[in-house]
Amino acid sequence: MESVTCVNVPQVAAAICPYIHHLHVRLKQKGASALLSLTRSMIEQEVPLQKIVVNDRVDVALLTLAGTVQLPANGLSVADAKSLLSEGTRCGVSVHSLEEVQTAQQAGADYVLFGHVYETHCKAGLAPRGIAELERICRLSDIPVIALGGIQPRHIPELYHAGASGIAVMSGIWEAESPVAAAMEYRRMVDLVVYESVPRK
Amino acid sequence: MESVTCVNVPQVAAAICPYIHHLHVRLKQKGASALLSLTRSMIEQEVPLQKIVVNDRVDVALLTLAGTVQLPANGLSVADAKSLLSEGTRCGVSVHSLEEVQTAQQAGADYVLFGHVYETHCKAGLAPRGIAELERICRLSDIPVIALGGIQPRHIPELYHAGASGIAVMSGIWEAESPVAAAMEYRRMVDLVVYESVPRK
Repeated sequence: MESVTCVNVPQVAAAICPYIHHLHVRLKQKGASALLSLTRSMIEQEVPLQKIVVNDRVDVALLTLAGTVQLPANGLSVADAKSLLSEGTRCGVSVHSLEEVQTAQQAGADYVLFGHVYETHCKAGLAPRGIAELERICRLSDIPVIALGGIQPRHIPELYHAGASGIAVMSGIWEAESPVAAAMEYRRMVDLVVYESVPRK
Repeated sequence: MESVTCVNVPQVAAAICPYIHHLHVRLKQKGASALLSLTRSMIEQEVPLQKIVVNDRVDVALLTLAGTVQLPANGLSVADAKSLLSEGTRCGVSVHSLEEVQTAQQAGADYVLFGHVYETHCKAGLAPRGIAELERICRLSDIPVIALGGIQPRHIPELYHAGASGIAVMSGIWEAESPVAAAMEYRRMVDLVVYESVPRK
């Protein structure tokens, strides 16, 4: 049994790393010092730079050479972020509507993070946007849409069939009794869908 | 009569600019987009880059070429910030104790911002650190100490006599009926003290 505390986040990150494509480093209520420190700890634990997504702070991404920056709705624009980052560093944008997806796309975002699709206690009291809206967004977007919010492994087939290029999971892994077992289960389901072994309903 | 709203902050900044040495751009509760936008508006209003101090965000300072970055207690270290900034960009650190002053100094900070010296409604319920502690900090610091917190023009003689190299004012100017008149009065008092025309008591 494992449990996540502030102390072992980098170790857990390293342990789940083989089963995920990207690791989003976000400490929304803390300062840049804590974000940088956590990112560096993950790098020390040999989480590959190309898997690391730094939230919001382009300066922290520059200091760590992280492969991706995730720009929140109130963050820097993709153009401004890319003007500072080395070529090849990816920029994702967090979006909540088709209009925001199109803005992000025109601005040169490499992907969008769209949510929340399902109910989640992280967004308590806010109505989820639902699978139909995800499907519409995916159909009208030219860049990859990553689905976010309340995702359980059982949701993965319908998310990918709706057009999602990937999923982002927070509590489903980090609040699991075993984050590694949870990450493995999410990955197993994704692989099943991607390799089309899951029969469509 | 003038009053400060979000709309005319850049105009007011430009108007008070002749009377101040630096202008600290800080939007603590907002994102990088708003901070960048406000900083750019000030530059458009011809506030000189060398007078602009960007709070916390080194990425915003890089995008605007602002002359100084003010690093909060939970912000990037001076060494990390300077490794990204062009040579000559100044880094100040916000401190609340002698220990933090010494850490900032060893880290290569160009100055420290120390406070709060007097009672201020911005720090309601927190005891001010007082003029005696400011004097002790200034005596033991090798880098300039800028005093902050509840400063009125009448305090300026004792602040400079305590060893402060400068003062930082927020509500005293921004909440004044006329920010320009307030800035002029602060500056008049500073000039009087600096040129030692104010007789020491």
